[in-house]
This record gives sequence, structure tokens and C-alpha cells, in this order.
Amino acid sequence: MEQRLTLVSLGVADLKAARRFYGEGLGWKQSSASQGDFVLFVLRGGLGLALYPRHLLAEEAGLADPGGFGGVTLAHNVESAAAVDQVLQAAVEAGATLTAPASEKQWGYTGYFTDPDGHPWEVAYVPSLPLSGGMLDT
Amino acid sequence: MEQRLTLVSLGVADLKAARRFYGEGLGWKQSSASQGDFVLFVLRGGLGLALYPRHLLAEEAGLADPGGFGGVTLAHNVESAAAVDQVLQAAVEAGATLTAPASEKQWGYTGYFTDPDGHPWEVAYVPSLPLSGGMLDT
Repeated sequence: MEQRLTLVSLGVADLKAARRFYGEGLGWKQSSASQGDFVLFVLRGGLGLALYPRHLLAEEAGLADPGGFGGVTLAHNVESAAAVDQVLQAAVEAGATLTAPASEKQWGYTGYFTDPDGHPWEVAYVPSLPLSGGMLDT
Repeated sequence: MEQRLTLVSLGVADLKAARRFYGEGLGWKQSSASQGDFVLFVLRGGLGLALYPRHLLAEEAGLADPGGFGGVTLAHNVESAAAVDQVLQAAVEAGATLTAPASEKQWGYTGYFTDPDGHPWEVAYVPSLPLSGGMLDT
């Protein structure tokens, strides 16, 4: 299996609300490949981020869904501590919930917000992980 | 917030077992930026995939963890239905659990496996999502 990941799907309860958060809230442009219940954003490097009804996602994956957190976090790394604060603030203004305010860690400066469906995003400044165009350059 | 995602972290119960699955099992090369409890694989396009203790991930994100699925799936898209079967078989041989055998869908041909910690991967052939080097080209 090649060392790559093409698409991350986030199961959502209210597709319109989730699309509004990522679209109007964060300012992301939806892909024209979106259709029906499948809302697609193509991110840097050709990585897809999809919004899809959570019950269908569980059903298709053959999994039971206890609800809540599932042990997966998404990180948006930035180039400075100041940028962490800025992105967290912008996300909260767009309707996100701040679940872990930014703080100094052993590895840098990070904080977490959750999107309207509770999916956690870490906004992180990690000096030991150099970036190139916002992606890892290690 | 820019339209990008830098790193996906998978919370794991047994770091050694998870590292064995992705490393020896799937044949992925670990990044030298890994340290301590943080095991990093740099995927195509500079996307990071990290393995990290699940209880620490929940704690850092400020979230309760009911266990199990959390409404997030990862997809590995390929160029043909035959490649879906091949990748699913390789994953199962590496210790994955087949939770949804590959089948024809309205949008293509896909199946799901879970890694040793229950994180679901879809292996997908989706003709309406053209690929370039394994990443989306839409």
C-alpha cells in the first residue's frame, strides 16, 4: 500500500451547517466534484476533505458509532505562535468551539477547536516540523 | 484559515503494534522527525500521518473519549477496481480487519479495513475523482 492518503471524510449531522462552517466560515472553496450528500474541498497538494452524513459513513465502513470523539485529530500547522492565535480566533468567529486554548508545549505552541460536528482541529506551531507551503518539509 | 491540512493524528492503544502495522505491515517509512510517543510518516505531498497515544490525544484536544469510531474515515484512492482488491488484500495480510468487503457502489468500487486501533481506511476506485500521482486532480 503506497504511503499516501487521498481523502479524509468527516461524518456530519447537518450537512448544510457543516458546509457553511467550512465554506462561508473558514472561506474554503467547494470542489465542483461535490455531489448530493458528498461535499468536497480539495486542499493543498490534492488532498480531499469531504463532508458526508455520519450515519452513512459508519454504515458504509461497516462500523458501529458510539458518537463523539474517535481518536483522530486533524492539524493545521502554521509558521508562528502568533499565527496559531489568529487562526484559532478566526475559527471561533466562524462558529468553532475552542476546546483547548493555545498554550506552550514541549514541542511548540498549539490549541484545539472543534467544528460544528465535534471534529477536532489542532492549530499548531511546531518548530521541529519545518513547513514548505504549509505542508511538511521533513 | 488556509484551505489545507498538515497532519492527521491517529490515537493508538499500543504504539509498537501500530508502528509495526504501518511500518513493517504496509511498508511505510517512518520519518526521522518521529520522537518519543510521536511516530510520524510523511505521506505524498508533505501530509503527515502520526501515531500517538489515544488518551494523550483526547487529553490534549480537551475532549472526552467514548471509544470506538468517531465519524472520520481515511481514503486511499487507486486507479482501478483490481487495485482496490490488491490493496485490501495486502492490508489484511498486514493485520488489518476487513470491515466492509469491496463492492460496487453508485460512485465506484470501494471497501474498508480498520487498522489495529479500529481506524477505518476506505480503499476506493472512484472514476469521477481523477487522480494525479495518487492525489486528487479535480
